[in-house]
Amino acid sequence: MKTLILMVGISMLFAAVVYGNSDNAKKGESDMQTIYPVESQKSFKGPEEWFTGDVQVKMLFPANDTAHFGGAYVTFQPGARTAWHLHPAGQHMIVTAGVGLTGTRDGKIVTIKTGDAVWCPPDIDHWHGATPDSAMTHLVITGDLDGKNVVWKEKVTDEQYLGK
Amino acid sequence: MKTLILMVGISMLFAAVVYGNSDNAKKGESDMQTIYPVESQKSFKGPEEWFTGDVQVKMLFPANDTAHFGGAYVTFQPGARTAWHLHPAGQHMIVTAGVGLTGTRDGKIVTIKTGDAVWCPPDIDHWHGATPDSAMTHLVITGDLDGKNVVWKEKVTDEQYLGK
Repeated sequence: MKTLILMVGISMLFAAVVYGNSDNAKKGESDMQTIYPVESQKSFKGPEEWFTGDVQVKMLFPANDTAHFGGAYVTFQPGARTAWHLHPAGQHMIVTAGVGLTGTRDGKIVTIKTGDAVWCPPDIDHWHGATPDSAMTHLVITGDLDGKNVVWKEKVTDEQYLGK
Repeated sequence: MKTLILMVGISMLFAAVVYGNSDNAKKGESDMQTIYPVESQKSFKGPEEWFTGDVQVKMLFPANDTAHFGGAYVTFQPGARTAWHLHPAGQHMIVTAGVGLTGTRDGKIVTIKTGDAVWCPPDIDHWHGATPDSAMTHLVITGDLDGKNVVWKEKVTDEQYLGK
């Protein structure tokens, strides 16, 4: 039970870090719009608990009182992928470079390439990442429901990743 | 009065086309996620009524019952820009190539470059486009309020665009 609480705690902390509430805005340049300059955006390695392989996350913008979603770029090197997880308010993914894969519990794995967009509805378990041979970058737009935007689960095994 | 009604009608029609409700999804590949493959996304020239110069729009995904926002890429050739307009549920812009400008009614014009993100709150008049010398592409995420996502206004004059 303690382990579960600790895991949920770490998960929520990581969710806040990855998709979250960081304030990297630069309001000085405009009173009416909020600017998030690329040089102020936080970038970090995807933690081993929730990712397999080499994954880099770059925050774009946080959720706000009007728009209940945050944005980030996530780049996966070949073979890298998320763990299984769900989003309580869904997620859009737009592939901005390379070729990747996304899988669901029905065993289906879809190849996604530069320019493709994907909608994952609320509470659907999925994973996403690079192909074994190509890196993939996507822009994720992740819905926020009462401050929560992801529930992390177990790792995606090599068998699941390779569709065996 | 007739002219006003006609203009509002055209505006709403265009809003639906640009940001809108087109169904270019490909559900066959996944029962649990919706895929919008790049080859199925509608692309068209930004109409002269609401844009100055050479503007190309490419739809990414429409709003849905859970996520009240749509996504599109918009590319402006040098000197091109939107007319003045507002978004009833706000808009995020992420610059994906080049250098651009965005202006507000207080006369402020901010230079935005690849990787920068911008949040324009609801009901704030703004414009966005390329610089005079550089093309700019951005991914726009536009909030939808009861089926409405943009209210178009007058063109941005050269004086306003150049901050004179």
